[in-house]
Amino acid sequence: MKKILICLFSFLLFCDVKAQNTEPIHASMNKVRLDFMVDADGRPAYKVFFGDRPVINNSYLGIKLKDDSAFNKHFVLAGSEKTTVDEYWTPVWGEVSKIRNHYQQLTVHLKQQDASKRLLDIVFKVFEDGVGFRYEFPKQPNLKYFIVSDELTEFSLTGDNKTFWIPGDYDSNEYPYTISPISQVDASVLAKSATDIGVRYVPDKYGIQTPLMMKTADGLYINIHEAALQNYTSMQLHADVKTFKLTANLVADAAGNKAYMRAPCHTPWRTIIVSDKAADILASKLILNLNEPSKIENTSWIKPMKFVGVWWEMQTGKSTWNYSNNLDTLGADGKLIPNGKHGGTTANVKRYIDFAAKNGIQGVLVEGWNTGWEEWFGSWNEFIFDFVTPYPDFDIKEITQYAASKGVKMIMHNETSGSATGYERQMDTAFRFMNKYGYTSVKTGYVGKIIPRGEHHDGQWMIDHYIRVAKKAAQYHVMLDSHEPVRPTGLQRTYPNWMACEAGRGNEYNAFGSGNNPNHETIMPFTRLMGGPMDYTPGIFKIKGYTADPERQVKTTLCKQLALYITMYSPVQMAADIPDNYEKHLDAFQFIHDVAVDWDDTKIIEAEPGEYITTARKEKGTDNWFIGAIANENGRNANIPMDFLNKGKKYVATIYADADDADWKKNPEAYKITKFLINAGTKLHIKLANGGGAAISIKPVTNEDKGLKFYK
Amino acid sequence: MKKILICLFSFLLFCDVKAQNTEPIHASMNKVRLDFMVDADGRPAYKVFFGDRPVINNSYLGIKLKDDSAFNKHFVLAGSEKTTVDEYWTPVWGEVSKIRNHYQQLTVHLKQQDASKRLLDIVFKVFEDGVGFRYEFPKQPNLKYFIVSDELTEFSLTGDNKTFWIPGDYDSNEYPYTISPISQVDASVLAKSATDIGVRYVPDKYGIQTPLMMKTADGLYINIHEAALQNYTSMQLHADVKTFKLTANLVADAAGNKAYMRAPCHTPWRTIIVSDKAADILASKLILNLNEPSKIENTSWIKPMKFVGVWWEMQTGKSTWNYSNNLDTLGADGKLIPNGKHGGTTANVKRYIDFAAKNGIQGVLVEGWNTGWEEWFGSWNEFIFDFVTPYPDFDIKEITQYAASKGVKMIMHNETSGSATGYERQMDTAFRFMNKYGYTSVKTGYVGKIIPRGEHHDGQWMIDHYIRVAKKAAQYHVMLDSHEPVRPTGLQRTYPNWMACEAGRGNEYNAFGSGNNPNHETIMPFTRLMGGPMDYTPGIFKIKGYTADPERQVKTTLCKQLALYITMYSPVQMAADIPDNYEKHLDAFQFIHDVAVDWDDTKIIEAEPGEYITTARKEKGTDNWFIGAIANENGRNANIPMDFLNKGKKYVATIYADADDADWKKNPEAYKITKFLINAGTKLHIKLANGGGAAISIKPVTNEDKGLKFYK
Repeated sequence: MKKILICLFSFLLFCDVKAQNTEPIHASMNKVRLDFMVDADGRPAYKVFFGDRPVINNSYLGIKLKDDSAFNKHFVLAGSEKTTVDEYWTPVWGEVSKIRNHYQQLTVHLKQQDASKRLLDIVFKVFEDGVGFRYEFPKQPNLKYFIVSDELTEFSLTGDNKTFWIPGDYDSNEYPYTISPISQVDASVLAKSATDIGVRYVPDKYGIQTPLMMKTADGLYINIHEAALQNYTSMQLHADVKTFKLTANLVADAAGNKAYMRAPCHTPWRTIIVSDKAADILASKLILNLNEPSKIENTSWIKPMKFVGVWWEMQTGKSTWNYSNNLDTLGADGKLIPNGKHGGTTANVKRYIDFAAKNGIQGVLVEGWNTGWEEWFGSWNEFIFDFVTPYPDFDIKEITQYAASKGVKMIMHNETSGSATGYERQMDTAFRFMNKYGYTSVKTGYVGKIIPRGEHHDGQWMIDHYIRVAKKAAQYHVMLDSHEPVRPTGLQRTYPNWMACEAGRGNEYNAFGSGNNPNHETIMPFTRLMGGPMDYTPGIFKIKGYTADPERQVKTTLCKQLALYITMYSPVQMAADIPDNYEKHLDAFQFIHDVAVDWDDTKIIEAEPGEYITTARKEKGTDNWFIGAIANENGRNANIPMDFLNKGKKYVATIYADADDADWKKNPEAYKITKFLINAGTKLHIKLANGGGAAISIKPVTNEDKGLKFYK
Repeated sequence: MKKILICLFSFLLFCDVKAQNTEPIHASMNKVRLDFMVDADGRPAYKVFFGDRPVINNSYLGIKLKDDSAFNKHFVLAGSEKTTVDEYWTPVWGEVSKIRNHYQQLTVHLKQQDASKRLLDIVFKVFEDGVGFRYEFPKQPNLKYFIVSDELTEFSLTGDNKTFWIPGDYDSNEYPYTISPISQVDASVLAKSATDIGVRYVPDKYGIQTPLMMKTADGLYINIHEAALQNYTSMQLHADVKTFKLTANLVADAAGNKAYMRAPCHTPWRTIIVSDKAADILASKLILNLNEPSKIENTSWIKPMKFVGVWWEMQTGKSTWNYSNNLDTLGADGKLIPNGKHGGTTANVKRYIDFAAKNGIQGVLVEGWNTGWEEWFGSWNEFIFDFVTPYPDFDIKEITQYAASKGVKMIMHNETSGSATGYERQMDTAFRFMNKYGYTSVKTGYVGKIIPRGEHHDGQWMIDHYIRVAKKAAQYHVMLDSHEPVRPTGLQRTYPNWMACEAGRGNEYNAFGSGNNPNHETIMPFTRLMGGPMDYTPGIFKIKGYTADPERQVKTTLCKQLALYITMYSPVQMAADIPDNYEKHLDAFQFIHDVAVDWDDTKIIEAEPGEYITTARKEKGTDNWFIGAIANENGRNANIPMDFLNKGKKYVATIYADADDADWKKNPEAYKITKFLINAGTKLHIKLANGGGAAISIKPVTNEDKGLKFYK
């Protein structure tokens, strides 16, 4: 049941206005204020304030059309309306079970003062924690089909903000973050050096990706991104390193165009989240609120879950995705010669199923189960994978039966190698195959240059492709976890079977790349995760000493890996390490066993991007809480008040903390587990090692907890 | 049953050869000789002779790879083999019922003299009427996946040949032909002026299309094209207007590349057909012989046919494809407002079915039957058509039943508007729909800029797409007639359900464009039709006075329209005019009623490109012959010996000839029909008007023909 309050105080001026607007029109919600104006040249512009402090200085708005460069000026204001909405809605799954949607909306109607009389509306929604706006193209005689050749949206920053950025790459979000003032942005260096990223294309030296997290000199936290990216291309930003003005930088298609539109239509929302508290940025629901409600009516089959997978062993060189080393050299029997290191074998998969069944993990992912992996990467070949042909040592019937007998769900893996056309051609076949063998979720992958050739991972065609996959998956009641797609923009509200995406630098880079810096996970929730859940694949217990490269290591402590299950929100969470490594630390694995993946409530207790995050979440439908606290390379003492617990009730807290001498580099696997009684008045003091973290599970006290001491 | 004679006299030199080859290696068949050599820089080259006369002077061969520019030199000849093949095969349908495949094959093995030791084979097949050759890339350690950035194949002409050319357009073959010396080729003028062609892209001012027809000063006829175009891009030609050297000019993809390959693999065949008789060019089976045998095992469902269609009335402005004029303006009932001119209505279609049933026509095509036509052209919209949703006034169930009751086959129309991705996504649905409603053939269309955007009609991705459509159609036992695809290269042998293509300037340009010159149909069999049948849509009876533009007219006489059923070979032939116009000339329509579409034998009686063609064909399985004779704007007296008839047997010839005062411009619809007894000794003398033609049907004499006179 929704509580809806709509206040309508609109004023309409649907006549031709000759004079330009000089007085700004305001919309506001609590401390956030939006000013809109049209300048003497008929150029629309806006400003954003947080209290008295400017957030975005005067910034122009507009779209450049391919057949008409002047769709950003010669406008007059032909009218405007204001509305206020206050309502609550219930997500299918999420960080909280109820979301408030409270905003004031300002719609401005613009009309061009020339023969075309073209119309453009701009809609602003002002929330307590920021502003969203989008361009709307009404039905009109002189604008129907059009091609967007550029978007001229500006975000004029008030100073040389501290910025957490990755390059504006059309194909990848998998970069490490740089923390620098805007004035020091240079995407070209990283674009060249990041050779651990398979496909990179960074056309603009000053191009940076959204969600872009910033902090002003006077302590305002600002996040710029977009919401509800559909039927359009994705927006990156061009940074003017001298004036600190950011400009929309749309990802181009194979023909050099940005977006293909037919009026009536609109762009995605451009979002500016702002607060003087970093924690408010993480808690913001602005992006979700700007997305459409679920288009899936029956959502009963959509279920958050934890899973293990035949995957990390390939990442670390213990086994391979491919069955053979060479497709061209066959054995005497005319068949492929197995390389003896194939990971996705029936026997090996059964070990993962056994482990999952024994340890409360619902799902098992298997990569490298299907033919094609011998030549899957780098060939720009459209026809690598068919999604239905297992390798000879992967007995899908036997595995299906075995998993079912153990109560474990198998998770499908559809790597496309970037061949989206190939996938679309076979998608129905692939999903029918999943239905046949009882797979209820699929991890997709797009590692490689995109086909249609010349398209990019983040361009309009691919954006629509990912959504087509989500819709098709929903038809077959399959949950989706997309790897290497465009970064999310809150569409999980609209397509709630689209559980998670990668679209960021995951834990895997600690296995095969230059790794993730110890501050990486303190930045990601402020950047990549603002748009939606990430399949970050936490839970690595064996931090050092992998086959592929003994020098390489995960740049966290073991306990920080546990904390990530809370600080890196996702409704699907992998326990990414191999069973052997978990079995050596089953006491620590208990946290992964216990931790929930769907929540009634979330409290961002403390947070500072690049430094630390402490988050507490209440499991959906229980009185259990789970806390994750992480630090950057400098460690810290976390003081965590338990004031979110029910007053007058006793709980048991199990604390998984770094050992006193733990250190991400020198001693990453050292931890200690302690158990105490606590209540709402308790304040936990936990030392987080350099690059460390802590995980806490909190449950109402039971008879079994009798001997426990109260925390002091 | 095949008669196969294979002579094998090969010599192998599979050792490293240090010295360069100086002596040419020859292969020959009758008058045609091929010389192959490797020059001092290790560059492979060839020459072609016809008797003593050079056809192609010394011409280099090679491929430019994207990652290595030197795949055309530094080769040594590592070995070669020669084989002779003489066999016969039976096409599923065709101009003749048995085809001789008689050639000498020379395979040369080249090896690069550098660290890569890359291998390249070139295979030449020398026939009595020309040469085919292709590049083959053997399995080898240092060449697996590769990208072709250019093909360096040369055709060095011996002089400033008279040439029948259209521009090298990546998207269209629908140009009028220019007759000029090579030295006067300039594709840019026509590329700009041909505004009646929807999509044009001519990047090379000196680019010309194949099949390219030429005539040398000393009377040799030369045709250059390609055969078996699969897994590669199409070859156009760049003309050096000073040296008369033609060079392969491959159509690029959206990323600027030409072809994506994986060794072992090969290019299509490059074909040079040569003779001192123009008729031999038209009779050549070289291109078919270079294609693979049918991949469809059961071909019993593949049947040549004639058809009428709701089509010409739209071309001439009498009715429309679209049901409504505006998708955005709905009626009071919330539905589209019909424009009252829609052609594809149940009632109208029934009229065509009635006409077909009454007049011996097997099929009825309906265009504009499905939703989308209001905005189908020019929007570059991927999602125009769904191929399964009829307009409200097209009752598909009723039409299906009605057609079945009359013994008429409905022909499906799937216009994609260039959205190949859209079509592939829905292709199974579309073919299932055809199966459901009993449609056994489909006409596809690609009018519009291609999606994947940046791809071209004639690039590798689309070439593979058309073949995918043919294969998919075969799965559903549907025959295919593709409009606006790449021009054919003999693949109808391999996929015999792919009955015909447009891929050329059809009769339709006489309705909506600047028209086809009176010599047009005397050129097309030497150019466009060399690769395969064309759905030219002959049979227009109302030559002048159409609604859309009263000035416009078909630039032939009515009788020439009849002759085209013979001179423009296709196993599917439309009777393109509307029933009303046929009903005024049912005596002339009798020829269309009678004419066959599948043949035991074909005789090219006389032919000169740009001037005239007279062709006789024997109907498959009968003793009936049909003759078409056409002239250019100058008319002519055709003298046609009947020596192909059975000796000592009497036949009745029905002659549909231009009236004495007929003239394509002044009096195009005037004709006379005469009937005579003839035998093998008869020589018919028929006057063809300016832009005129004659059609003759010949049947063994019966009792009904008693009163007829013998022809003198």
